Amino acid sequence: MPTYKAPLRDMRFVMNELLDFEGHYRTLPGGEEAVEVIDAILEEGAKFAENVLTPLNQVGDQQGCKLENGVVTVPEGFKEAYQQYVEGGWPSMNQNPEYGGQGLPHSLGMVLNEMICSSNLAWGMYPGLSHGAMSALEHHGTEELKQTYLTKLIEGRWTGTMCLTEPHCGTDLGLIKTRAVPQADGSYQISGTKIFISAGEHELSENIVHLVLAKLPDAPESTKGISLFVVPKFLPDAQGEAGERNAVVCGSIEHKMGIHGNSTCVMNFDDATGYMVGQPNKGLAAMFTMMNAARIGVGIQGQGLIEVSFQNALAYARDRLQMRALSGPKAPEKSADPIIVHPDVRRMLLTQKAFSEGGRALIFYTAQLVDTVEHGNEEQKKEADEILGLLTPIVKAFLTEAGFEATNEGVQVFGGHGFIQEWGMEQFVRDARITRLYEGTTGIQALDLLGRKILMNQGETLRKFTKQIHKYCQSISQQESMHDFAKPLIELNKEWGELTMKIGMNAMKNREEVGAASVDYLMYSGYVVMAYFWAQMAEIAQKKLAEGTSEQAFYQAKLDTARFYYARLLPRTRAHAAAMTAGADTLLAMEESAFGLGFEV
Amino acid sequence: MPTYKAPLRDMRFVMNELLDFEGHYRTLPGGEEAVEVIDAILEEGAKFAENVLTPLNQVGDQQGCKLENGVVTVPEGFKEAYQQYVEGGWPSMNQNPEYGGQGLPHSLGMVLNEMICSSNLAWGMYPGLSHGAMSALEHHGTEELKQTYLTKLIEGRWTGTMCLTEPHCGTDLGLIKTRAVPQADGSYQISGTKIFISAGEHELSENIVHLVLAKLPDAPESTKGISLFVVPKFLPDAQGEAGERNAVVCGSIEHKMGIHGNSTCVMNFDDATGYMVGQPNKGLAAMFTMMNAARIGVGIQGQGLIEVSFQNALAYARDRLQMRALSGPKAPEKSADPIIVHPDVRRMLLTQKAFSEGGRALIFYTAQLVDTVEHGNEEQKKEADEILGLLTPIVKAFLTEAGFEATNEGVQVFGGHGFIQEWGMEQFVRDARITRLYEGTTGIQALDLLGRKILMNQGETLRKFTKQIHKYCQSISQQESMHDFAKPLIELNKEWGELTMKIGMNAMKNREEVGAASVDYLMYSGYVVMAYFWAQMAEIAQKKLAEGTSEQAFYQAKLDTARFYYARLLPRTRAHAAAMTAGADTLLAMEESAFGLGFEV
Repeated sequence: MPTYKAPLRDMRFVMNELLDFEGHYRTLPGGEEAVEVIDAILEEGAKFAENVLTPLNQVGDQQGCKLENGVVTVPEGFKEAYQQYVEGGWPSMNQNPEYGGQGLPHSLGMVLNEMICSSNLAWGMYPGLSHGAMSALEHHGTEELKQTYLTKLIEGRWTGTMCLTEPHCGTDLGLIKTRAVPQADGSYQISGTKIFISAGEHELSENIVHLVLAKLPDAPESTKGISLFVVPKFLPDAQGEAGERNAVVCGSIEHKMGIHGNSTCVMNFDDATGYMVGQPNKGLAAMFTMMNAARIGVGIQGQGLIEVSFQNALAYARDRLQMRALSGPKAPEKSADPIIVHPDVRRMLLTQKAFSEGGRALIFYTAQLVDTVEHGNEEQKKEADEILGLLTPIVKAFLTEAGFEATNEGVQVFGGHGFIQEWGMEQFVRDARITRLYEGTTGIQALDLLGRKILMNQGETLRKFTKQIHKYCQSISQQESMHDFAKPLIELNKEWGELTMKIGMNAMKNREEVGAASVDYLMYSGYVVMAYFWAQMAEIAQKKLAEGTSEQAFYQAKLDTARFYYARLLPRTRAHAAAMTAGADTLLAMEESAFGLGFEV
Repeated sequence: MPTYKAPLRDMRFVMNELLDFEGHYRTLPGGEEAVEVIDAILEEGAKFAENVLTPLNQVGDQQGCKLENGVVTVPEGFKEAYQQYVEGGWPSMNQNPEYGGQGLPHSLGMVLNEMICSSNLAWGMYPGLSHGAMSALEHHGTEELKQTYLTKLIEGRWTGTMCLTEPHCGTDLGLIKTRAVPQADGSYQISGTKIFISAGEHELSENIVHLVLAKLPDAPESTKGISLFVVPKFLPDAQGEAGERNAVVCGSIEHKMGIHGNSTCVMNFDDATGYMVGQPNKGLAAMFTMMNAARIGVGIQGQGLIEVSFQNALAYARDRLQMRALSGPKAPEKSADPIIVHPDVRRMLLTQKAFSEGGRALIFYTAQLVDTVEHGNEEQKKEADEILGLLTPIVKAFLTEAGFEATNEGVQVFGGHGFIQEWGMEQFVRDARITRLYEGTTGIQALDLLGRKILMNQGETLRKFTKQIHKYCQSISQQESMHDFAKPLIELNKEWGELTMKIGMNAMKNREEVGAASVDYLMYSGYVVMAYFWAQMAEIAQKKLAEGTSEQAFYQAKLDTARFYYARLLPRTRAHAAAMTAGADTLLAMEESAFGLGFEV
């Protein structure tokens, strides 16, 4: 069975040495308190992830969820783990104190979330989905809705869902058919079918609060006619507790490639009672409040799975004896050398390590932006929001693509054993596979990045960010020890702007150029952004090594990983740069009817 | 449920227009007969794959195999399908007429094999494993062994296995512990445990013929002390039929990520009676007779899975309506455009198409080499064998890596639905995942290619092949229409040699440079080799288009796919070239004890 240790040392490196979380928290309201509890949160979170969630991960995969007579049974131990989670006060951690929250910064929750995603992704989605619901209610709900629903969600006694997708539409929410008919009492009757509803039905919590996109009878076509509603599984009674059953039921649960422990439900709404959240026909904006946080959350899933796969692949590579090193035996006393001596096994482990640690730096940085958007002054807020908007699709798509690659490297390190369920390595791959799909596929993230976040304001946001990288490069360009990082980073950062300009120009002639370039553009951007963080980490490591430290090996490994990233992974930008500038014709030239002529008769 | 149509048009393009299979067959003994039956084999094979195997593919995945009291039950319909296969005379197709075979060329079997791999990989492994056993017996068995075992395998009444791996060793067969003790009657008593034995136990056939690697009591250490034995499940009786049960039993079956329909067995040999195949301590050579064919077979699995995933992704992309094209509605009469209008969806489909069709060309070319090795004169044999040896690890590893990527693109085209088992797209991914592992991982193939096949004879074999590509480039360099292909191919072909030289020089100083470069080197080589075939296919297509043809759309699509390959996939060589020359230090610098310092306390 796979094991997991929360990577506290590396988390502290990123929080304390790279990103100065303490300094950052002190700029936030109530930040002093956050500083004081960082250690306790990290350590208690680690214990919960290691001791409670990790042992349930494989159980969850094997048992899956079952639906009988409308009741969904989750894997053994999941409910007890959720109770512990609630008793530990975790659901309220980052929430608004006005409604019962502890008011700690969101970033701290995101750090914890990495541990949950590493230890048990399927379980983590039950409380995870509540975050989107809380966020939507907090920002768009009336005071009454907040008092009724948000308080219970914050307590953790109720959980939430996001009901967006329908059988005929996922990406294209303008097509949804679910209807909301206004009632005399101000409520709505909701009817329709939603699919792929994660944590849609279960008995972990006393009630489930569905956040549902639906259309009013007179709604305009397209996404301009979508409204958001809260539809509880049980209608609150006079005391505000779960009362009468509402007309929303789980019609079936999906059999999936992975995340078996999470119930993915078809939810049927049959004149279910709901309440509007936010303004009529403005549901899409409210939904994006949920969605943006969810997208970063999915990026964390990708990175968390890399970390746990790496830890187990490393243990195996040290233990498994097979062949001798090409340069001669390294463990002559054993029947063969441990496979970690082989360069190609190290290539796979270092790929995992570089993506996990680089991804962590990127995510924690993003987490600080989330804090600032929530608590900063107007100017700080605006600036942070812009960069956060830019980085969100990168975090989501780049880290999940990397997550799928790296969890597959974990399987590859195990050889044939990696394919066997017992070892648990293939579960990480299957679980990681969904992250490239849900909350918007990689293709959708790429369009969001290039089309909406970058080209829509003529690259202004990108220029702000590349300027930040440029400034950093200036600051290191005089350090000889940083030359190996500064030079390629300066070049790439410049090229990033040039490529953007080029695609932007082409897109003015043909808008299809955006979609033709987008995924390669996103991957390219991801490699550059991660290179920016790896340079910073290398700089810190070199300083520590120069100053002298009792943790020489840790900092040397950090520097070695940075060098590996620059030498072995960053050159992939060459392939993406060429592909993204190849032009839309390479994709659009073929007649649709000709694609299948090799097999169609 | 996924569907499958044998890509007969494209197979014929490769066989008739690219590789002149008829001309090739006419150089072989009995080749005229082969020419006459090509069409019948293609068409009957297509029917069998489409109508018998395809409908059983998802059934096999869902039901898997069960072990009860030593008896393995395979999925419903598998046994009946095998009977039809035997009744159709398929097992004997490429086998030696002296032992009951039809003597048709191996290449024809490999063409058929693509269809089997596309339609039902797990089923295909039952008859597939027999090929290795037949090959080992044919080349290394005594006449008595051939009469007893080979004839039955050729009839298909008995099936075969390859028993190599043990719990503590897969790659490193020098470590095997299975023992073979000689008996007075010339037989051996075999004892030991073999794992990951595909088709190790089942009741499809009357008997199972295990080809087992074991060590004689006085055998030297390492792979120099391995011998090969045939160990039947039932000992042949006086009539040569399956008689008394031998002491080899299935101890358990593995629960795997994919290929659920195939029984992957732990086989326990407990003083089982066996007979030596070939010479004492020369088992490794005999094993490689099985292994080389098996490795090409796995490459076909990769390519076959791309083809079927492509076909289903294409159908979905034409059917699924979502969003409008960025340049304006393409199907204004519908609620949204079919997603095939979106360039990024086309990028995924074209990636599948380019890898499938390019892989087919490479495999069919390799298949001709197999024929020549089997039937050519000494000189032809030697030359074909050398190129075959060079291409085998590329076919195996490059096409399975491409297979995993491309089947994942198939899932991605389906969005969230791709993750749901019902659609069948995720099964192709899970089934494809094993192909990167078994019969030698990608890492092992890469060492075989760079270390053994190329550097061991100072690049001489590679030079022969690059000279062949160079000659081809010369032949097209004056055609203006081929300029877009000739120029990059000339450059890459030259660079391939230069990179090899560079790594070879480095390896003289440090042998670890081989392992540090090998996987990137292999992938690079794969892209170049495939580019060579895409250039040839583009040339043929252009000629046809220039001459005029009733299949204008087919040839135009071929040319468009070639252009896509050169513009969008071939630039990946830039990343691999940079990574492979980054040097072993980027992998070996880190202390083994430092890898885990981010999480180890």
